[in-house]
Amino acid sequence: MKKVEPKTLAGFMELLPKEQILFNKLKQRIQESYERFGFVPLDTPVIESSEVLLAKAGGETEKQIYSFTKGDSNLCLRFDLTVPLAKFVSANQDNLNFPFRRYQIGKVYRGERPQKGRFREFYQCDIDIVGRENLSIINDAEIPSIIYHTIKSLEIGDFVIKINNRKILKGFFEYLELENLTTEILRIIDKYEKIGKENFVLTLEKDLNLSSEKINLILDFITTSGNSKQKIEKLKSLNIQNQTYKIGVEELEQVVNYMLAFNLPENAFEIDLTIARGLDYYTGTVYETFLIGYEKIGSICSGGRYENLAEFYTDKKFPGVGISIGLTRLFDQLRENKILEAKSKTTTKVLIIPMTEDFSPSLKLASFLRENHINTEVYLENTKFKNKLSYANKQEIPYVVIIGEDEINQNYYTLKDMANSTQFKLSKQELLEVLNK
Amino acid sequence: MKKVEPKTLAGFMELLPKEQILFNKLKQRIQESYERFGFVPLDTPVIESSEVLLAKAGGETEKQIYSFTKGDSNLCLRFDLTVPLAKFVSANQDNLNFPFRRYQIGKVYRGERPQKGRFREFYQCDIDIVGRENLSIINDAEIPSIIYHTIKSLEIGDFVIKINNRKILKGFFEYLELENLTTEILRIIDKYEKIGKENFVLTLEKDLNLSSEKINLILDFITTSGNSKQKIEKLKSLNIQNQTYKIGVEELEQVVNYMLAFNLPENAFEIDLTIARGLDYYTGTVYETFLIGYEKIGSICSGGRYENLAEFYTDKKFPGVGISIGLTRLFDQLRENKILEAKSKTTTKVLIIPMTEDFSPSLKLASFLRENHINTEVYLENTKFKNKLSYANKQEIPYVVIIGEDEINQNYYTLKDMANSTQFKLSKQELLEVLNK
Repeated sequence: MKKVEPKTLAGFMELLPKEQILFNKLKQRIQESYERFGFVPLDTPVIESSEVLLAKAGGETEKQIYSFTKGDSNLCLRFDLTVPLAKFVSANQDNLNFPFRRYQIGKVYRGERPQKGRFREFYQCDIDIVGRENLSIINDAEIPSIIYHTIKSLEIGDFVIKINNRKILKGFFEYLELENLTTEILRIIDKYEKIGKENFVLTLEKDLNLSSEKINLILDFITTSGNSKQKIEKLKSLNIQNQTYKIGVEELEQVVNYMLAFNLPENAFEIDLTIARGLDYYTGTVYETFLIGYEKIGSICSGGRYENLAEFYTDKKFPGVGISIGLTRLFDQLRENKILEAKSKTTTKVLIIPMTEDFSPSLKLASFLRENHINTEVYLENTKFKNKLSYANKQEIPYVVIIGEDEINQNYYTLKDMANSTQFKLSKQELLEVLNK
Repeated sequence: MKKVEPKTLAGFMELLPKEQILFNKLKQRIQESYERFGFVPLDTPVIESSEVLLAKAGGETEKQIYSFTKGDSNLCLRFDLTVPLAKFVSANQDNLNFPFRRYQIGKVYRGERPQKGRFREFYQCDIDIVGRENLSIINDAEIPSIIYHTIKSLEIGDFVIKINNRKILKGFFEYLELENLTTEILRIIDKYEKIGKENFVLTLEKDLNLSSEKINLILDFITTSGNSKQKIEKLKSLNIQNQTYKIGVEELEQVVNYMLAFNLPENAFEIDLTIARGLDYYTGTVYETFLIGYEKIGSICSGGRYENLAEFYTDKKFPGVGISIGLTRLFDQLRENKILEAKSKTTTKVLIIPMTEDFSPSLKLASFLRENHINTEVYLENTKFKNKLSYANKQEIPYVVIIGEDEINQNYYTLKDMANSTQFKLSKQELLEVLNK
C-alpha cells in the first residue's frame, strides 16, 4: 500500500506529550487565575458565518482569515476571541448581568506566512469586563492586578506591566494640531523602542513632514522619566490646554492610585507613554507586559479599554476593558529562550510491575491507588523485567511498585524510587503515604 | 450604522456561562480520570492537509468534512481524533515509548445536516492505548475499568458497559458460510435493539435473502442470555468449529476475568452479542455504554480494539484499543433529559460591596482573599446598594461582604450568606474560614 507522509502543516504547533503537559499546566494556571478574579467561561464556536465575523474586519486581518463555503453558507474560522464576544454579548444581552466578566481560552486562526515564532493556529487566553452603558475606571486598575497574579502564577521570571492612556496621546496631538495624523504618529510611536530615537525622528520628518519643533515636543513627551507619580506630575505640568489630554492624565492618575490599592507592588508596573497598541479600537488605558531581560519577545499580555464592544451588532453601548495572552507564541518563546523546561513525559506517579503470571494483585493495587487519587499505570505487556523497568525510566515515572511471589505471600509491596534507585518494603498504607507526598 | 444580526450558526453549541461552567466541570473530570489511568495529553491541530486527513476516509464521513483551500494548500478540519493520532504516532514513533497511552479532548467538525441532538462542532474525549507490533489483551480489560471510573465521576446516574468481541461474530458468520455478508449482517445486528426482532428477521430475509434456518441460528446466538459466565459457557457449548470464533470467545473470557480483577462491579457490565460498532476497523473487543433508564440516548462511551492504527502512513504495525466520549452530544442529552442541572452562573465565592467612597479597604480584602485561593469579585460600579446586592443575587454568588464606615472603623467584616440572608460580624481570619468551607 502506498503510504501518505504523516506530516503536520507548517505554522501549526504540535507538541510531544512532555511539552504538552507543560503547556497544559500554563493554560490551567491562567484559567485558575482568571476564575480567581471572578471571570466566567465562554466557549464560542471556531466557525462563524462570514457576515458575523467580518462585520468589522478589514485590511491585513481580513487577508489572513480562513474562509470557505459549505453548502450555501459563507463561513470563517475565528481570528480572535473579541469578535465572538461582541456577537455573544449582543445576542445574549438580556440574559447577562453587567458588568459581565468573561474569560475564554481557545484556538484562533490566521493564515499568516509561516515564519519562526508565528503560528497559524494559536491559543488566546482572554478576559474582558464589559459594562452596559458605563464601566467604572476602577476596572482599568483591576486589570494590572489580574495580569500580575496571572503571569506570576506561570513562574517565568520577573516582568513589568507598562500602562498608558490613549487619551493623553490623543489630546497631546490635538494640542499640537496634529490630530489628523494621530493614527500615523501613534503607529510610529508604537515602534519607538524598536527603531530607536534617530529613526523615529527621521520617520516623523520624512514620512509625516513634521517641523523639528513639534518633533522635539513629541520626543520630550514620550521620553518623560521618573516613577509613576513623577511622570504624572510632569504630564500635569506641561500645561497642555486640551480637554482629552486632561481627562487622560486624570484617568491615568486614578488608575495608578487604585493599582496600588489593589496591592500591586510599585516595581511591577510603570507608565510608558510610548505604549499605544496598534489596534484602533482602544480608547483609554492600554497595557503591555514584558519579561525583564527578554524584552525582545515583545509584549506577553496586552490589552486596553474600549468605548464600544459591539457597535456592528447592536445600538446598545458596551464599553469594556480586556487583555489577551497569546499562549502558543509565549510558550514557543519560553522554550526557545530556555526560560521554562518540560520536566516529565507523564503525570503518572507510579508504575506497577507484575512479576507473577496472575496479574490480579497488581490490578487490585492499581484500583486502590487510583481510588486514592494517585495517577497509576500497570505494565501489562509480556516482556522481561528489564524492559518493564526501562519503560518507567524512559517515561520518567518517579516510582515503581514490584509485585512478585514474595510480595504476594508475605503481604508487602516493594517500592522503587527511580530518582535514586533505592528500594523499600512497604505495607499498602505506607505505600499510599509515600506516593501521596 | 447598519447592524449585522449577531447569530451563531445552526449545529454549533454556544452555552451561557451557567451551562458552560457545568460543561467544563464534566470535561475536567474526564481529563482527571484519564490522567488517573496514566494517559498523557495530545493537542493536535484542528486543520490538517487533505492528503493526510483523507488518507483513509471515504463514504459518508468524507462528504461531511469541511475542506477548503488556502493559497496552494488543500486543507480539512479534523472529523475525529483518531486519524490525527495515527498521523502523530507514525510521525513520532521513534520519540514515543510503547504502549503509548494518550488522551485528547478537543473539538471535531462534521458538516452534517443540523438536527436536534446533532452537532457540526463537538467535543470528543478520547483515550487510546497503542502498542508497537503487539498489545496485550489485558489492556482490553482495563478499558471498561476506565469507562467505569470516568462515567461514575460525572455523577449522571447508573450505567452499564456492554462488551462484545468482533471475532466471535466474524467466526460465527464464517461458520454459517455468510462471511461475504459479514459487514452487512453486522450493520443489521447493530440496529437490532432499535428495530426489534420482527424487523430484524424481515431485513435479513428480504435484504440479504438468508434462509430461515440461518436466521434462527443468528437470532439464537445474539439473544444468548444469563450472566457473563453463563453467556461464555453458552458460546463455548455451541460447538462452532471455527478458529476465529474460538479465539474471540477465549479473548472475551480473558477480558471478563481481568475486568473483575480490575475491581469492576459485576453489575457494571454485561456481554451483549449484538454490539458490533459500525466502524470497520475494530477487530476484537468492542464497548458501548448506556445510561440505565435513558438507553434511547444511545451509547455515551464507545470504542474497541483495532489491529492497525496507522497503516496509511507507515509499514510498522500499531495495534491499539481506545474509547471516545462525545461530550457535546452527551451534555445536550443530559440537559434535555434533566439528568444534570447547572447550579450557578459563576464560580465566584464572594462579592465584596464597598460602601465608602474610598474603595481601598475593599480592594485590599479582595487581594487577601484571592491570595488565599478564594474566587472573589469586588462590585466596582457606582450605583445604589440595592443594585449591588441584586447583582450578587442574579449572579448566584453565595456570599457577600459589606465594607462600610463602621466596618472600617471597628475593624470587622459583615458577611451575608445569600442562601438564607443571615449576616455575621467577622474578623478577617473568621471570614476566611467561612469562605474556605
